[in-house]
Amino acid sequence: MVGGGTDAFIGAIHRLAALMDNQIELVCGCFSVNPEISLSSGLSYYLPESRVYATYNEMFAKEVLLPEGERMDFVTIVTPNFAHFEPAMMALDNGFHVVVDKPITFTLDEALKLKEKINATGLTLALTHTYSGYPAVKEAKTRVSRGDFGKIRKVYVEYPQGWLSTKQEDAGNAQASWRTDPKRSGKAGCMGDIGTHAHHLAEYITGLKTVELCAELNVFVPGRMLDDDGAALLRFENGAKGVLMATQIAAGEENSLKIRVYGEKGGLEWHQHEPNTLLVKWSDKPTEIVRVGNGYMGDIAKHNTRTPGGHPEGYLEAFANIYRNFSLVVRAGMNGQTPKAEWLDFPTVEDGIRGMQFIDAVVKAGYDDTTKWVKF
Amino acid sequence: MVGGGTDAFIGAIHRLAALMDNQIELVCGCFSVNPEISLSSGLSYYLPESRVYATYNEMFAKEVLLPEGERMDFVTIVTPNFAHFEPAMMALDNGFHVVVDKPITFTLDEALKLKEKINATGLTLALTHTYSGYPAVKEAKTRVSRGDFGKIRKVYVEYPQGWLSTKQEDAGNAQASWRTDPKRSGKAGCMGDIGTHAHHLAEYITGLKTVELCAELNVFVPGRMLDDDGAALLRFENGAKGVLMATQIAAGEENSLKIRVYGEKGGLEWHQHEPNTLLVKWSDKPTEIVRVGNGYMGDIAKHNTRTPGGHPEGYLEAFANIYRNFSLVVRAGMNGQTPKAEWLDFPTVEDGIRGMQFIDAVVKAGYDDTTKWVKF
Amino acid sequence: MVGGGTDAFIGAIHRLAALMDNQIELVCGCFSVNPEISLSSGLSYYLPESRVYATYNEMFAKEVLLPEGERMDFVTIVTPNFAHFEPAMMALDNGFHVVVDKPITFTLDEALKLKEKINATGLTLALTHTYSGYPAVKEAKTRVSRGDFGKIRKVYVEYPQGWLSTKQEDAGNAQASWRTDPKRSGKAGCMGDIGTHAHHLAEYITGLKTVELCAELNVFVPGRMLDDDGAALLRFENGAKGVLMATQIAAGEENSLKIRVYGEKGGLEWHQHEPNTLLVKWSDKPTEIVRVGNGYMGDIAKHNTRTPGGHPEGYLEAFANIYRNFSLVVRAGMNGQTPKAEWLDFPTVEDGIRGMQFIDAVVKAGYDDTTKWVKF
Amino acid sequence: MVGGGTDAFIGAIHRLAALMDNQIELVCGCFSVNPEISLSSGLSYYLPESRVYATYNEMFAKEVLLPEGERMDFVTIVTPNFAHFEPAMMALDNGFHVVVDKPITFTLDEALKLKEKINATGLTLALTHTYSGYPAVKEAKTRVSRGDFGKIRKVYVEYPQGWLSTKQEDAGNAQASWRTDPKRSGKAGCMGDIGTHAHHLAEYITGLKTVELCAELNVFVPGRMLDDDGAALLRFENGAKGVLMATQIAAGEENSLKIRVYGEKGGLEWHQHEPNTLLVKWSDKPTEIVRVGNGYMGDIAKHNTRTPGGHPEGYLEAFANIYRNFSLVVRAGMNGQTPKAEWLDFPTVEDGIRGMQFIDAVVKAGYDDTTKWVKF
Repeated sequence: MVGGGTDAFIGAIHRLAALMDNQIELVCGCFSVNPEISLSSGLSYYLPESRVYATYNEMFAKEVLLPEGERMDFVTIVTPNFAHFEPAMMALDNGFHVVVDKPITFTLDEALKLKEKINATGLTLALTHTYSGYPAVKEAKTRVSRGDFGKIRKVYVEYPQGWLSTKQEDAGNAQASWRTDPKRSGKAGCMGDIGTHAHHLAEYITGLKTVELCAELNVFVPGRMLDDDGAALLRFENGAKGVLMATQIAAGEENSLKIRVYGEKGGLEWHQHEPNTLLVKWSDKPTEIVRVGNGYMGDIAKHNTRTPGGHPEGYLEAFANIYRNFSLVVRAGMNGQTPKAEWLDFPTVEDGIRGMQFIDAVVKAGYDDTTKWVKF
Repeated sequence: MVGGGTDAFIGAIHRLAALMDNQIELVCGCFSVNPEISLSSGLSYYLPESRVYATYNEMFAKEVLLPEGERMDFVTIVTPNFAHFEPAMMALDNGFHVVVDKPITFTLDEALKLKEKINATGLTLALTHTYSGYPAVKEAKTRVSRGDFGKIRKVYVEYPQGWLSTKQEDAGNAQASWRTDPKRSGKAGCMGDIGTHAHHLAEYITGLKTVELCAELNVFVPGRMLDDDGAALLRFENGAKGVLMATQIAAGEENSLKIRVYGEKGGLEWHQHEPNTLLVKWSDKPTEIVRVGNGYMGDIAKHNTRTPGGHPEGYLEAFANIYRNFSLVVRAGMNGQTPKAEWLDFPTVEDGIRGMQFIDAVVKAGYDDTTKWVKF
Repeated sequence: MVGGGTDAFIGAIHRLAALMDNQIELVCGCFSVNPEISLSSGLSYYLPESRVYATYNEMFAKEVLLPEGERMDFVTIVTPNFAHFEPAMMALDNGFHVVVDKPITFTLDEALKLKEKINATGLTLALTHTYSGYPAVKEAKTRVSRGDFGKIRKVYVEYPQGWLSTKQEDAGNAQASWRTDPKRSGKAGCMGDIGTHAHHLAEYITGLKTVELCAELNVFVPGRMLDDDGAALLRFENGAKGVLMATQIAAGEENSLKIRVYGEKGGLEWHQHEPNTLLVKWSDKPTEIVRVGNGYMGDIAKHNTRTPGGHPEGYLEAFANIYRNFSLVVRAGMNGQTPKAEWLDFPTVEDGIRGMQFIDAVVKAGYDDTTKWVKF
Repeated sequence: MVGGGTDAFIGAIHRLAALMDNQIELVCGCFSVNPEISLSSGLSYYLPESRVYATYNEMFAKEVLLPEGERMDFVTIVTPNFAHFEPAMMALDNGFHVVVDKPITFTLDEALKLKEKINATGLTLALTHTYSGYPAVKEAKTRVSRGDFGKIRKVYVEYPQGWLSTKQEDAGNAQASWRTDPKRSGKAGCMGDIGTHAHHLAEYITGLKTVELCAELNVFVPGRMLDDDGAALLRFENGAKGVLMATQIAAGEENSLKIRVYGEKGGLEWHQHEPNTLLVKWSDKPTEIVRVGNGYMGDIAKHNTRTPGGHPEGYLEAFANIYRNFSLVVRAGMNGQTPKAEWLDFPTVEDGIRGMQFIDAVVKAGYDDTTKWVKF
């Protein structure tokens, strides 16, 4: 693991998600740019001192020398965006598979380079677009793709949060500090952090690519350097239209990602706050409350569910689904087996590239009052 | 009443709304362009034959000759949009107050003329933007206007319906037929019918005027002549930003008008399907479920509520609130009294003009890929 | 109307409910035991002074002498329970139909006498068990009776309110004052007021009679003279079992009547706070959100609905359904016509007798620690 | 681990819950009475063959001989009820701490013996009453105990499931088979399986002991040998009253555990299907939606939460909270430290004894039509 010291947020989530299915062990790490924090973190995670490294350069250099079966199999990168590319590339160069937080890199160009390297090495990269890991989201994708609703016409995806309603970056909130800093986050704030999740979800469920957008980005909190709010009108490749809303200044909202998709005959609705429920709507009959864990769910949803209906699974299990599928694919590769189709259902470098393209387009459109539509 | 025969929809709603509070009686009407339907309708409403007219010209001509106390006090116009202006103007010319369905007229120009006439005559006109008649909506307005949430930053208003997902206008649905016909509805379809409601609600609750919009309108059902879907980015006079979504092709949706408003310190959410609940959100404490009929509600909400908490009021009561307040104002005028402030809280010709301006702007922006922002 | 002065609660509800459908006019009344309040109330309801009476004895005596077509057709009785029987009997003796609030009388014996009189006169009596007036409740009854769920096994009906959590009867609350007074309410408090509604709903939807109950009644607020809380285990004639909970000390609850019914294959759930929604559940497929106003609803629900889906109807419309069906039956009788089956779907003296039997049984069981089951 | 082979349900849950927090490793087990299944299960869990045992007798005998630091620290028992006592006692006799599924034993007598042994050895036993592991439930307990609602008056706890609506025990459902078999489950079916959870939750949140109950148990599915449904009226030590409903024949229900508690000033509601939300109700102000992961939550809830607000935690995390707290207490003991108060907040042998007492009382009352109240 690169990053994820005891003073960090997302690293702890990754560890929970990786460990719960008894498929992955934490064997080594460089948990901080501060070697002392790295060491104390590693020890608190029950690692031997010898496997806690001061830099990731050292980690890759030493791990690669360990005998197979003892050295790590893959690395997880949970640093701020600006520090994704270098360790990811170094991992690939040393033959390690990679799990990396989104957005995949600081720039689109870096993402394209990672793709080249992956193509060249045949290694596996998973991108933690967590929300596509929920079984109800996978069921939504299944139902859209098999044509239940006819041709898709309309997508509403919204992601309101409220935690940046005030200037948290000046109040000692470490995550707010780097999220709002263009040197560490990149050219987008809210759109990079959560707009990319919303965009990914829309493309994932519909199986359709967006081809053009019209957008406005806003900075509501005075002195902030990156967008904390924005909305975009979307055009999809098949003629469907969408609206994407992402904000971090909706005071009083938690993490209220929601998507609605409508086709000719019906539609569906999913809300991350009640992730085990998928509403399926019809023109001529009652809305159905489709619930994770029931016998009527599709195979892909079932493969990504651990408990029977009424035993709520949550964010950590969605996260763990990415790790579990990634580990199944990596282990299949190590054993010379062909992975099953449902194991391959996790975000990869391609999704990372789409995210970087979305960021480029939405930032270009977002502050320009004269250009209405930006292609991407 | 002009329109509203037994074969029509909205007329029945108007009668229910007007009668329930025992303040208004139905005394006469011209209920259809077909004199036979007009007569049979009037008789079925327990009117004497002498007060059922074949044309509204006849109605105004004869009613004005009846003695005060016997003749009608006001007229309700519930015809399709193209037939609003003429009877409304004729009513005002004959000294009758007017209740008219929205949008107020066929063109903005007609609406401006009605305003002139109202100013000249001192008569009262009520416009049935029903949704602002809900007590929870009035409570929302009260709380925003007294500054509970600080400066308003963001408004999301959405109005998804699904009833025009298929070509209902070819399937014998009378309302679909005129709603989708530019000769009877005007230049906008979905945006004229329900987009205006959404726009009105946003301005009503926030007390802010929209000044600019960026929009895309769509026609999804082949062969349809007016928009059946659209979305707009909104800019408000105080710098707040909004997103307005209206669609009639969201298959499986009923009448799912919803609004969310966020300020610096918190926000609120109201959904027409659960109209007695107002969610009030805060950055630093739990969301509150504010419920109509409770002692903690504000005076304006209380004035517009008939039952205690937990006895749900609905669409007809919201509609009736417009009639009741209108009747209180008209009766006060007849009695030479000054109406109370809360009686004046119903939509008027000014709201009608805003609606026509919105229609003009959203249609102008909605099909133009090069002009991003349209002022209005 | 007997009772229902401007100082009373339920009378206003009855007038709204009676008037909204344009089938009934208020023509006379004795609105209070205080003749001055009666008169001022009647005038404020736009009645001529000659039709406002000082006593109901006077009202019946004078109205019966008026010519047919001018005199009232039926009387509504909205006094406290102890004053139901006498005016109801007097109305029937004078040939007037009756609408009376529940519970029907002060004692079971009075209810049985009313039944005799109704049988002898052929007049019509409607009992305002409002909640059975909701279209979703009627749909529930339809689906149970046609066997959708197989044999019914289990019923949960609950009615939590919180308004009597403190001693409101000492705080100037007029309704609390008589509701908690055995001289005016009868032998039951909470169980008479709302327990009877819950019991009626259970029998109405299932079409099954309860035959035995086991209960505990409680008085939580010190000094109160009647039960303010209670629960009962129910046995139905077909072997189904039920739980009935009614309380007025659930602090923070409004009027949260809810019923769930389960059969061999599925079940249903209805909550009065969201009255237009009926959840229909199945063992092997998703729960359906059945919504009032849609084309798939049954004929009886449709007959009791005024607006399309997504235009919420509420408590007043449910109330109005009783009045509308009652008026259709009465008018059919006056016109020598046979009423349609769906018009007859309102509570009558039979339901009133069941309610009084329930009160007798639950009070008998409720304070007795040694007798477990009481038949009724 | 004893039990929990790849063919079993609850064992997998225990492993997920134990592993996710990186505090516990699976080191050995006897996973089935069938040695082949035990071995194949252990290998699939990545255990060395030497630590997979054919019997638990063998496991305890061999593990106790391993050096400290290598041998297991505690055992988890996930067999059917009849096979809890013997391995638990054997573990304690050999100095191992114990985690055991509920109900704790087959009979009350066995539970009392375990308590004696625990008192004698000073070892720690955790009982997996999962639902008390939810942070929102812990917050509920905190708020009741600090007196937010005044004296508690009323408790409604309900646990409807539908999975035993048909005779699953004859359809090859292994869990249904032992749950409905008195030889493996004990004297109660539904009440032992889920009634005990409901009873525990009521006592846990209120901090009050039940002292008496009146109940009816039912067997709805023909040929079933144990109760599949039941309800009880409860009396608490402070005079509060309760209703407990548990059923497994509510066709269409998943795992819909819900509790409501009311005091003099307000109350609370929690539903396991939306476990991160706690509704807090008040007589005189709006209901609050208290949400897990927010800054306003109490310390005990925070200690049991892994993610920020809006990142739903679920059943597995609630389960994991029991394991985490148990491991913190066990590790503190191994390190000679005093555990913090919040670590001790997990169910123990005392809760197990209460559960067995509840089973005895509810079964005694449940089939007896003459005895109304049973003390316990």
